[in-house]
Amino acid sequence: MDKTTARHLDPMSDAAIAASVTPEPIEAVGARLGIPADALYRYGPHKAKLSLDYIKGLEDKPAGKLILVTAISPTPAGEGKTTTTIGLGDALNRIGAKTAVCLREPSLGPCFGAKGGATGGGHSQIVPMQDINLHFTGDLHAIGAAHNLLSALIDNHIYWGNALDIDVRRIAWKRVVDLNDRALRSIVVGLGGAANGFPREDGFDITVASEVMAIFCLSRTLEELEERLSRMVVAQTRGKAIVRAEALKGIGSMVALLRDAFQPNLVQTMEHTPAFVHGGPFANIAHGCNSVIATRSALRLADYVVTEAGFGADLGAEKFLDIKCRQAGLAPNVAVVVATVRALKMHGGVGLKELVNEDVAAVKQGAANLRRHVENMQKFGVPVVVALNRFLSDTPAEVEAVRGVLSDLGVNVHVCSHWADGGKGAEELAHEVKNLAEKPSAFHPLYSDDLRLSAKIETIAREIYRAGEVVFTPEATRRLAELEAQGFGHLPVCMAKTQYSFSADPKLRNAPSGHVLPVREVRLSAGAGFVVALTGDVMTMPGLPSVPAAEHIFVDADGVIGGLS
Amino acid sequence: MDKTTARHLDPMSDAAIAASVTPEPIEAVGARLGIPADALYRYGPHKAKLSLDYIKGLEDKPAGKLILVTAISPTPAGEGKTTTTIGLGDALNRIGAKTAVCLREPSLGPCFGAKGGATGGGHSQIVPMQDINLHFTGDLHAIGAAHNLLSALIDNHIYWGNALDIDVRRIAWKRVVDLNDRALRSIVVGLGGAANGFPREDGFDITVASEVMAIFCLSRTLEELEERLSRMVVAQTRGKAIVRAEALKGIGSMVALLRDAFQPNLVQTMEHTPAFVHGGPFANIAHGCNSVIATRSALRLADYVVTEAGFGADLGAEKFLDIKCRQAGLAPNVAVVVATVRALKMHGGVGLKELVNEDVAAVKQGAANLRRHVENMQKFGVPVVVALNRFLSDTPAEVEAVRGVLSDLGVNVHVCSHWADGGKGAEELAHEVKNLAEKPSAFHPLYSDDLRLSAKIETIAREIYRAGEVVFTPEATRRLAELEAQGFGHLPVCMAKTQYSFSADPKLRNAPSGHVLPVREVRLSAGAGFVVALTGDVMTMPGLPSVPAAEHIFVDADGVIGGLS
Repeated sequence: MDKTTARHLDPMSDAAIAASVTPEPIEAVGARLGIPADALYRYGPHKAKLSLDYIKGLEDKPAGKLILVTAISPTPAGEGKTTTTIGLGDALNRIGAKTAVCLREPSLGPCFGAKGGATGGGHSQIVPMQDINLHFTGDLHAIGAAHNLLSALIDNHIYWGNALDIDVRRIAWKRVVDLNDRALRSIVVGLGGAANGFPREDGFDITVASEVMAIFCLSRTLEELEERLSRMVVAQTRGKAIVRAEALKGIGSMVALLRDAFQPNLVQTMEHTPAFVHGGPFANIAHGCNSVIATRSALRLADYVVTEAGFGADLGAEKFLDIKCRQAGLAPNVAVVVATVRALKMHGGVGLKELVNEDVAAVKQGAANLRRHVENMQKFGVPVVVALNRFLSDTPAEVEAVRGVLSDLGVNVHVCSHWADGGKGAEELAHEVKNLAEKPSAFHPLYSDDLRLSAKIETIAREIYRAGEVVFTPEATRRLAELEAQGFGHLPVCMAKTQYSFSADPKLRNAPSGHVLPVREVRLSAGAGFVVALTGDVMTMPGLPSVPAAEHIFVDADGVIGGLS
Repeated sequence: MDKTTARHLDPMSDAAIAASVTPEPIEAVGARLGIPADALYRYGPHKAKLSLDYIKGLEDKPAGKLILVTAISPTPAGEGKTTTTIGLGDALNRIGAKTAVCLREPSLGPCFGAKGGATGGGHSQIVPMQDINLHFTGDLHAIGAAHNLLSALIDNHIYWGNALDIDVRRIAWKRVVDLNDRALRSIVVGLGGAANGFPREDGFDITVASEVMAIFCLSRTLEELEERLSRMVVAQTRGKAIVRAEALKGIGSMVALLRDAFQPNLVQTMEHTPAFVHGGPFANIAHGCNSVIATRSALRLADYVVTEAGFGADLGAEKFLDIKCRQAGLAPNVAVVVATVRALKMHGGVGLKELVNEDVAAVKQGAANLRRHVENMQKFGVPVVVALNRFLSDTPAEVEAVRGVLSDLGVNVHVCSHWADGGKGAEELAHEVKNLAEKPSAFHPLYSDDLRLSAKIETIAREIYRAGEVVFTPEATRRLAELEAQGFGHLPVCMAKTQYSFSADPKLRNAPSGHVLPVREVRLSAGAGFVVALTGDVMTMPGLPSVPAAEHIFVDADGVIGGLS
């Protein structure tokens, strides 16, 4: 294949659509929120970080309204949570509400794997999409370097005499790389003789799974970041005492590596809505939302802040509300649950290839998944609205079927076309969100801090997953008791469960109930401030598919990067 | 220890001295070289990258004079090559010569290990030193990501059926991390069952040892970068055929990851001399100089460009001249050999603790090392001058002894005090460099391309190292023949030898001759375009010391990073 002919942007691609608009200078984007140019640390003309000094000065300002975008249980049909976050942000600005969006920053792993980038799609994208999807402002690299410095310090400590008496069989701190690389999941390090240290089992996670990332996203200040890093538990001694990260003496260096990264990133949507894109923790073993410092800063600069949480509402929204909001003192004013007719049909039993055909019965059946998520959001005391992302194959009868299923919940459904039309396609949704946000927020977390850890898990399983029973392995029970004895019982729990089902079985779509939720393993994230409950195999290092996206990415003769999606 | 009291910059530290000057806006620094502001891609107020489009437009401009700064064989006494490069650049600007400096960019490994950063010292530093020493503009992270993407693609290819028939025992492509981490030198990957791939031996090098880094530093254009990456040899098949990187189909993605990084970085010295700081390959298994694209760009923007090469002149300068200049069509006009009286005394047999005492005899004896390096530089047809970095303990008699040893070579010795005094302390050196640069350059590489590989090694050993004999292991002999049969015989050789001696024995200081040079192993860097000859144990992944520098780095209450040196 001739290189030059092969190397053109597909005109229908997200990259080509993004290239069709001229971004504003980032100073102009900041000015929309009243940010002075000298508070921006620029990375080229269209990206900037917001200085920590400027952020400190915002503390006394009143906070705007916080809008959470979440979704039904994901299916291969797609639902469009990120595009809705962007489209709603654009639409709010169009109707005169001063709005910013807050998103997670992409990881290189999915960009080169199967999932693609994380900058939206169609006419609801953040730009410059190539920059944001690749290195952006280097935050993930900084987090990876800080994480791996601690890893090196642990093995170095053991090499030079192991004064802390670390048990090499009980080191909980792995290494990270920001790529999908299955060969690194399980490895043996320290081979090759005495000069290379002590052989031991180890492994790599993808960087977004690092506890450093979770801490980065939950800290309000650089001081809090340092405190949280210090109290991470990285290993046990031969006598089973916990070893905290601070004992390795590298916390100052880790903070030095993270200092610049910790400043929130500012970019813009294709319609020039200010977008804070900062932090991106895994949504299974961590809480899956953008950084607290970005969200809090945005709330003091804009009247409305639209943000999203990872996976479906049972996982992403629950953690957003029970972990991020609890820890950061945030209270959402509206929850938007995103769905598509196509995805609801899949929950209703239709196969991927038959989705183009009208099937009102399947929509009605599958809308039970949506209804369940809406009910769950209402349990947190948050007003809810549904955004139905339009596909050309949707029929009026199918849309009406969705409305019908939700009619007794007092929740409106708005058909949105921001993917095709930009913010204009979400104006109706924006008006309702603005109205709902005027109501006084009755938000409350699902459970209180003083519940026992097992009871917290049972509460989530009963109220959100509608499980009939939670079964703990003996090891999980033992570990929960140990954690409570060690003083970690007050922490919230972070559920690691498949995103494809309310249950722990990814094949069980729609709205199962009465199922058994197995809790197989429990892990402590002492710095992030939560206890992870694993209900199945949790992948913290993805693999690449047989034909990875990496094969299709290129730089053309003009230096433009193509093939990213 | 109270955190707040412990966390102040040491007022005598390099960081504090650097903080005593106010850097100019990077646009003003660029303007000194006539660079328009829109050719600069800014990273905050004091760092920028030079756009590739702008660089393309420079091709037809006449080139300035190229000044190479190299040094005697290093000792623990230090010689000050980087400070001399910076001080000479500042001095040339002070005497009215439009000058830029070109330096390598630092690696995180040494910053957190023992060696410290790479931004000079005293009053001859480049700024902002903390930024440059830590993530800078993300180049090393980009190189690491590109390298590790290829690693992941290799294992992924094997996992999905190994259509290329890669022999898992003969994969030459390791993984990299930009830290000192000895536990990763020798590892086994792919453990844990079939889902994680095929177990095999592997290891991590430090990022600067990656062939991607060497290629990055030798490519003139993005197109050349892509070509070189494509032709890297990463493995052999079961039938021993070579497998090139392009067969893994990820070259476009690697170039996409490297596109921004490939733009040269512009910063400034403490006296506002423009400084291009770009690329930093290992000086043993690679060639140890900053990027060709930075050097070539600087030569078209400034009348004088001062640059340095790694290690002593036997290694760094030889590779600069025989690899970088040969491949990039560069010809140096002057070579500056840096020495100190203290270091010459160490070569003369004095111990580190006795260096403060005058010892003219030891200086005379140790100056044989300096004389040898000067003679070697003259063999390349390049005018030479010696910079003697002043220490307070130096006596006039010792300085005269150095001059005496060199008197018959027609080479002047200039005592420099730029470390204490900035550019003013190197003005005398600058005047001589400017005069020498007026002479027509008679530069020629040491050997021609068409010499056999073994003869190239023997030429370097005889002419530069003054070895009596080169002894090849049978394996090295076999491999050299194999490489010539495969069509790699025309490549230059990259010697991997201890920097502490002209010989392969690091304990043999001063000017040994007649020694035996063992060539133990030969490696191909097909993309970088050289054959590496290893004459001893070569460390491509350093370890951390018992008390690493990482323990002393911190961020103070004002967000200033301290403890970096």
